[in-house]
Amino acid sequence: MKEYKSRIRIEWAHCDAAGIVFYPYFYTWFDQATERLFTANGLGYGDLKREFGVVGMPLVESGATYRNACHMVDSVEQTTWVDEWTGRTFVVKHRLIRSDGRPALEGFERRAWVVPAPDSSKGIKAIAVPQTAIDRFRD
Amino acid sequence: MKEYKSRIRIEWAHCDAAGIVFYPYFYTWFDQATERLFTANGLGYGDLKREFGVVGMPLVESGATYRNACHMVDSVEQTTWVDEWTGRTFVVKHRLIRSDGRPALEGFERRAWVVPAPDSSKGIKAIAVPQTAIDRFRD
Amino acid sequence: MKEYKSRIRIEWAHCDAAGIVFYPYFYTWFDQATERLFTANGLGYGDLKREFGVVGMPLVESGATYRNACHMVDSVEQTTWVDEWTGRTFVVKHRLIRSDGRPALEGFERRAWVVPAPDSSKGIKAIAVPQTAIDRFRD
Amino acid sequence: MKEYKSRIRIEWAHCDAAGIVFYPYFYTWFDQATERLFTANGLGYGDLKREFGVVGMPLVESGATYRNACHMVDSVEQTTWVDEWTGRTFVVKHRLIRSDGRPALEGFERRAWVVPAPDSSKGIKAIAVPQTAIDRFRD
Repeated sequence: MKEYKSRIRIEWAHCDAAGIVFYPYFYTWFDQATERLFTANGLGYGDLKREFGVVGMPLVESGATYRNACHMVDSVEQTTWVDEWTGRTFVVKHRLIRSDGRPALEGFERRAWVVPAPDSSKGIKAIAVPQTAIDRFRD
Repeated sequence: MKEYKSRIRIEWAHCDAAGIVFYPYFYTWFDQATERLFTANGLGYGDLKREFGVVGMPLVESGATYRNACHMVDSVEQTTWVDEWTGRTFVVKHRLIRSDGRPALEGFERRAWVVPAPDSSKGIKAIAVPQTAIDRFRD
Repeated sequence: MKEYKSRIRIEWAHCDAAGIVFYPYFYTWFDQATERLFTANGLGYGDLKREFGVVGMPLVESGATYRNACHMVDSVEQTTWVDEWTGRTFVVKHRLIRSDGRPALEGFERRAWVVPAPDSSKGIKAIAVPQTAIDRFRD
Repeated sequence: MKEYKSRIRIEWAHCDAAGIVFYPYFYTWFDQATERLFTANGLGYGDLKREFGVVGMPLVESGATYRNACHMVDSVEQTTWVDEWTGRTFVVKHRLIRSDGRPALEGFERRAWVVPAPDSSKGIKAIAVPQTAIDRFRD
């Protein structure tokens, strides 16, 4: 699967005192959609560990550009895809569109593909994402 | 006040299955530190409304670059300052340093200074930040 | 609709350092499921305000009893219903069952049905839930 | 230390569309205050593991009774103490008072003291809290 689509209904739980989504929630949705895209391709966290020895996909960078606010009760469509495989890291992009067709925001996460490295000071190290994993992100 | 410093102890409540801070939390801390810096300068949300008619500081853009993970029980120091006043928007920067002196992450929020605009489709509009507000961010 | 059923996949975003759901999340799910049940019955927050002048359903009491932990990647079924209408308040119950059929937890929220009361110190007051609202919670 | 006192300033990040604390946050504050009380007594999560082989303090039950809403910008005082040691479980209580002296809410967590149990189906088991741990909760 190349793109993962989520439908998110903006609820009371997500909104701040202005009645719009409290912005850190968007990053939680990015994280969840990334997990869902990977899981749909047989790369859930359990699979990653079992098949690739991967113990996580820590963030290297993240960001978002906000176009139009998401108001309570609205429903947004989030599209998620891997935009770029760049050796030991990769970029996941997320685009959220409001139900009126207007863009809500675009965001990205650059993550690393990490395995245990008992000898390093961090205990983990990033290695190149194997082609067999990359190949799964096709329709 | 030019810079606001927060001390954050990394707790169970912040950490994911890898025992490090779940990254959207950093943006919550950005939001809180921005509010604290503004409040320290007499620009809390109540003041903003009363004195400037400002009904919020919605996000235009946000982002972060991660250097070293924040582990449970560690204590990080977050420094927050307005890096740039650019007319109707401004950039707040946040730098987090771990207790071992290593950089944890740097992040930013570009926010707009908005007042009600009943005639516009959004109901709000961004206006130039008044100099009297900017002048408060001095030591 | 009498009962609302949600399917929740336990994700990285929900889990703590023990790899199980960080417990305050359950209350967020309670809040969301209550909103969904009410919305399914034409009593979303917008409807409540428009039709009944209701400005919220603040909590009077909440609680949960935990049976078996919810682990990452598991999928749980949450069933939500109004258990009791008691004049100005009502009790919403939530039961979560793991995919292996074991109970995860049961919880409840006692909420009040409140309308504006400009003369009161709190600015709101609880009134008896109208029978026309209660009647909607039928199959 | 018998009682742990936290001062919480209600911020934008905590508030819902009604401008009051979104209630699951109170449970996050319970969790944090419990950790802080235990840590103040030399029973942080690291200590628990090292000294007692304890791998967590999972919830058995939790609950709260809400008296008066916590509004943005208000500052509340949270007092936390272990109310009862009952063998393999214990009850932590939390009382939050608003800055105007009115009660905000009272809550509790019943938690278990658990160690690894590789042979059990859950992988963990609750054991009696040792007296040497209990003895630390004195002034």
